[in-house]
Amino acid sequence: MAESMKGLRRSHRCTEVSNKLIGETVTVMGWVQKSRNKGGIIFVDVRDRSGLLQVIFEEGDVGSEGFAKAERLRSEFVIAVVGKVEARSGAINENLKTGDIEIRAKDIRILSEADTPPFPIEEESKTKEELRLKYRYLDLRRPDLQKNLILRSKVANLTRQFLSEEGFLEIETPMLTKSTPEGARDYLVPSRVHPGNFYALPQSPQLFKQLLMCSGYDRYFQIVKCFRDEDLRADRQPEFTQIDMELSFVDVDDVLEVNERLLHKMFKESIGIDIELPIQRMTYTEAMDRFGSDKPDIRFGMELKDVSDVVKNCGFSVFTGALEKGGSVRGINANGQADMPRKKIDALVEYAKDFGAKGLAYLAVNEDGTFKSSFAKFMTEEELGALVSAMEAKAGDLLLFAADEDDVVFAVLGNLRLEIARNLELLKKDEYKFLWVTEFPLLEYSKEEQRYTAKHHPFTMPMEEDLELLNTNPGKVRAKAYDIVLNGTEIGGGSVRIYQSDVQEKMFEVLGFSKEAAYERFGFLLNAFKYGVPPHAGLAYGLDRLVMLMTKEDSIRDVIAFPKVKDASCLMTDAPNVVDDKQLTELGIAIDVEQ
Amino acid sequence: MAESMKGLRRSHRCTEVSNKLIGETVTVMGWVQKSRNKGGIIFVDVRDRSGLLQVIFEEGDVGSEGFAKAERLRSEFVIAVVGKVEARSGAINENLKTGDIEIRAKDIRILSEADTPPFPIEEESKTKEELRLKYRYLDLRRPDLQKNLILRSKVANLTRQFLSEEGFLEIETPMLTKSTPEGARDYLVPSRVHPGNFYALPQSPQLFKQLLMCSGYDRYFQIVKCFRDEDLRADRQPEFTQIDMELSFVDVDDVLEVNERLLHKMFKESIGIDIELPIQRMTYTEAMDRFGSDKPDIRFGMELKDVSDVVKNCGFSVFTGALEKGGSVRGINANGQADMPRKKIDALVEYAKDFGAKGLAYLAVNEDGTFKSSFAKFMTEEELGALVSAMEAKAGDLLLFAADEDDVVFAVLGNLRLEIARNLELLKKDEYKFLWVTEFPLLEYSKEEQRYTAKHHPFTMPMEEDLELLNTNPGKVRAKAYDIVLNGTEIGGGSVRIYQSDVQEKMFEVLGFSKEAAYERFGFLLNAFKYGVPPHAGLAYGLDRLVMLMTKEDSIRDVIAFPKVKDASCLMTDAPNVVDDKQLTELGIAIDVEQ
Repeated sequence: MAESMKGLRRSHRCTEVSNKLIGETVTVMGWVQKSRNKGGIIFVDVRDRSGLLQVIFEEGDVGSEGFAKAERLRSEFVIAVVGKVEARSGAINENLKTGDIEIRAKDIRILSEADTPPFPIEEESKTKEELRLKYRYLDLRRPDLQKNLILRSKVANLTRQFLSEEGFLEIETPMLTKSTPEGARDYLVPSRVHPGNFYALPQSPQLFKQLLMCSGYDRYFQIVKCFRDEDLRADRQPEFTQIDMELSFVDVDDVLEVNERLLHKMFKESIGIDIELPIQRMTYTEAMDRFGSDKPDIRFGMELKDVSDVVKNCGFSVFTGALEKGGSVRGINANGQADMPRKKIDALVEYAKDFGAKGLAYLAVNEDGTFKSSFAKFMTEEELGALVSAMEAKAGDLLLFAADEDDVVFAVLGNLRLEIARNLELLKKDEYKFLWVTEFPLLEYSKEEQRYTAKHHPFTMPMEEDLELLNTNPGKVRAKAYDIVLNGTEIGGGSVRIYQSDVQEKMFEVLGFSKEAAYERFGFLLNAFKYGVPPHAGLAYGLDRLVMLMTKEDSIRDVIAFPKVKDASCLMTDAPNVVDDKQLTELGIAIDVEQ
Repeated sequence: MAESMKGLRRSHRCTEVSNKLIGETVTVMGWVQKSRNKGGIIFVDVRDRSGLLQVIFEEGDVGSEGFAKAERLRSEFVIAVVGKVEARSGAINENLKTGDIEIRAKDIRILSEADTPPFPIEEESKTKEELRLKYRYLDLRRPDLQKNLILRSKVANLTRQFLSEEGFLEIETPMLTKSTPEGARDYLVPSRVHPGNFYALPQSPQLFKQLLMCSGYDRYFQIVKCFRDEDLRADRQPEFTQIDMELSFVDVDDVLEVNERLLHKMFKESIGIDIELPIQRMTYTEAMDRFGSDKPDIRFGMELKDVSDVVKNCGFSVFTGALEKGGSVRGINANGQADMPRKKIDALVEYAKDFGAKGLAYLAVNEDGTFKSSFAKFMTEEELGALVSAMEAKAGDLLLFAADEDDVVFAVLGNLRLEIARNLELLKKDEYKFLWVTEFPLLEYSKEEQRYTAKHHPFTMPMEEDLELLNTNPGKVRAKAYDIVLNGTEIGGGSVRIYQSDVQEKMFEVLGFSKEAAYERFGFLLNAFKYGVPPHAGLAYGLDRLVMLMTKEDSIRDVIAFPKVKDASCLMTDAPNVVDDKQLTELGIAIDVEQ
């Protein structure tokens, strides 16, 4: 039986009760974390969002009826307790904020009883995630998830506070919008009023925020849900949250500068991390050359070195063959790993193959200065020495080389570097290393479509000095695009936008769109640009990933209240589900699944 | 040709330039509002989000090339101007914040040219809304719309600030969720991964916020998009924004108290309106009796009076007939309107018929004390006198009566009262009268479905003193539900929720749901309630309507950046639209429209 709280009013949350209130009467309400009877005294830990508080029940204080209620208490019962704050009679619990006090109950009500939960409500749960997600409402009671969602709320708050002070307006853009078949797959919403027609859920508010700049709103932001119907990976959800912004009358430096201050405030005031400003910048080309990645993790070194020149005339045909085909030979130096067991090296070779390597050449510099190498027999001692010297290797180091097209070499060594770092536990979650990666290529060539596609999107501005290359060598054009990278994860990115119609037309030409096709897709934006458009630029963060890194979680599911799993379903609600035929008929659609 | 802003950086927004800066050089950027050449001097009003600033171009200052550019300027060109701040040479413009200064241009760049817009960018546009919505990006340049969206951003900010300070956490709930066929029609989203299954867009985060209370989050809020696929009216949109909240361990008074302080802050700090607290409360019964409405506009009187007792034995069968059928006779007194022309009275009678009246009885008290009435011949002088006296009518007043079932009488007189007030221009938009309406009926009887349905939703708590009536007379049970009404518009509402499983089961029984049906629809909530649920309550505001009233607009479209029109389409993007067959095939659906 559930009792009413009539006549009672909570006076404090659990951890708001402190030794300053000793002698006073308080009313607390919360969940029974645990309850034990020790020699006729019942000790109950009461839990709420703020933490735990110990309540003691003795029949002399709480009366026989109250004591009988206390005897019935089990985990997760919801209770209200009126009692006096006292210094703790037993040993002080240093782990609890309220560890030096307890409440001597004078009155108790059982507001709600509880069945035994299918798993214990505790930090660092060992329960399988699937079960936890089915009972997400219980999982969400765990203090670590509560801490995560409280932090997320705080990060959103800090963001809004900062951006508002900087003159950004939060403006809502539509959720029911138009499908533009570019980029990822859209989620569609059938229209009942216009049968046969569909809305699309936005992949991002990109076009709307650019329109807002055309309309003179000057600085826009929004913390907003976006949708992509992609096959899910560990760090993706069908719906995800962006911190989205756009600014008028700015260039790259302005965007980076305001975002550095935003990040500084965010990290300082939420998790106490003091980001050193300005944040280091690196061009895309440098990032690839040094780290084999456009989102380098710079918490550790092990940088790539190009040894093509050193090996170009050597006797090892894997190296020279790659060079002859226009590729490169590059290596990384795993310091002090010369005695890595053969089995582990083999595992690295297998790992490298996942990224397109045909093999992996290695060379260990033994403590006595001799080499152990997969390719020693193909090279002279002198050639090996030159290689070791180019790699700045010393006794005890392990060198790993990839020889292939640049793309493959970068992918292989960039990932190998991370794999070795993980194996050696070099990646500290409490170290936060930020990096701007700039000057991305504007275009990438799609072998599948036999044309250039936009690396960011078709509205990204080329660098002024590369404008001419649009005519002669589009693949070489660099964009005014930038990503913000934290510990090897891209947490945000953006670009300066094209605002000149001649450049935009050129861009569509290079992408192989006819004018008609361009208007079909982006007509309202192109039309808007005819009526006076300011130079503008923007950036968007993935809030889920950002908070995941802040909370040191491994999965974004741990920073989302009600996440979906890999097949885009919700284990708690069973969404998506089957609907009434009547609903489909009204929408003018039918299910058409091949059996 | 668009020039680059390279090397330039905006120093001020237009109205940030003031007479304190006279003599200094500033760089402003914005749109040309208008441009005129007066005796070889070109005067240009530059517009940005902040307002207007006058720039003057003389060839001696800006050079011949610069002057030639200035000569080319037309409305909506985007320019950057470097110049010196000077006291205005001509007459001071008192209407402008910058009316006492001007900028003497030293340099100008044309950042973007502009075609002539299809309508002028000006306040209080006379342009047809349809055209303005097609070119929404131009419409949004108008200062009144900018003011509205800036205010909206501010209201959201104030709300977040207040609720955060009060310990509310903003927690995001899913957009892709489960269809529960109760209430309005859902927008559905086909699932590609689970063909034949659908997500629904949320009509509100109701179930999720209650789950968050079960999970111990204590105080939740969210400013969130909600979706209802209903036929649109002037003040409805398929997607709309709620300020949504839920609190644990509270009862009605706690919810009202915190919301009164929220409203106070909101109105004070956004539009300078000082709401008198506490806000007046009125039960549903009293609201109907006095105003014939559950959302009374209390900016004016003209209250309903029940004259059933006075007329019960009179000779007018329209009155006595209604009473015999269990109805009532009630009237309103339109003070001083005795000489309303017959034509206008007839119009009121027609208006009344729209709300179910078979007719409308009227009685005017002439200045000489005689009566002019549609029913005088059916009553004695004495009976008429008693009626006039009951209505507290004096010479010059016009009385209007409805006799019917209570529902009809309330609908007729409640609306008539508003219609007369509109006709007499009694409704001042700058007067803000708030009212809590409480103790709503828990249930209403659906003649169509031959069962009781929940007036709010099936989780609304009955008043304790009425619990017994659930068994004997469910229609009489009052709920712990409340609406906040502003000037006759419901701007928000909510309730205390059922947290006791026995009460919830009883509620489903009264609604005619089997236990299976209840679990089918709300299973995850009912399951969650088994594991310890706190007493909780909540409230949600319609942000669009709220801001509409604050900005004194007549349509919510004027406070939404990219609204949809009555047929739920967007005139700017043409959403919804036809999509590729490939997209439908992937989703396992087909269009099935009867031709």
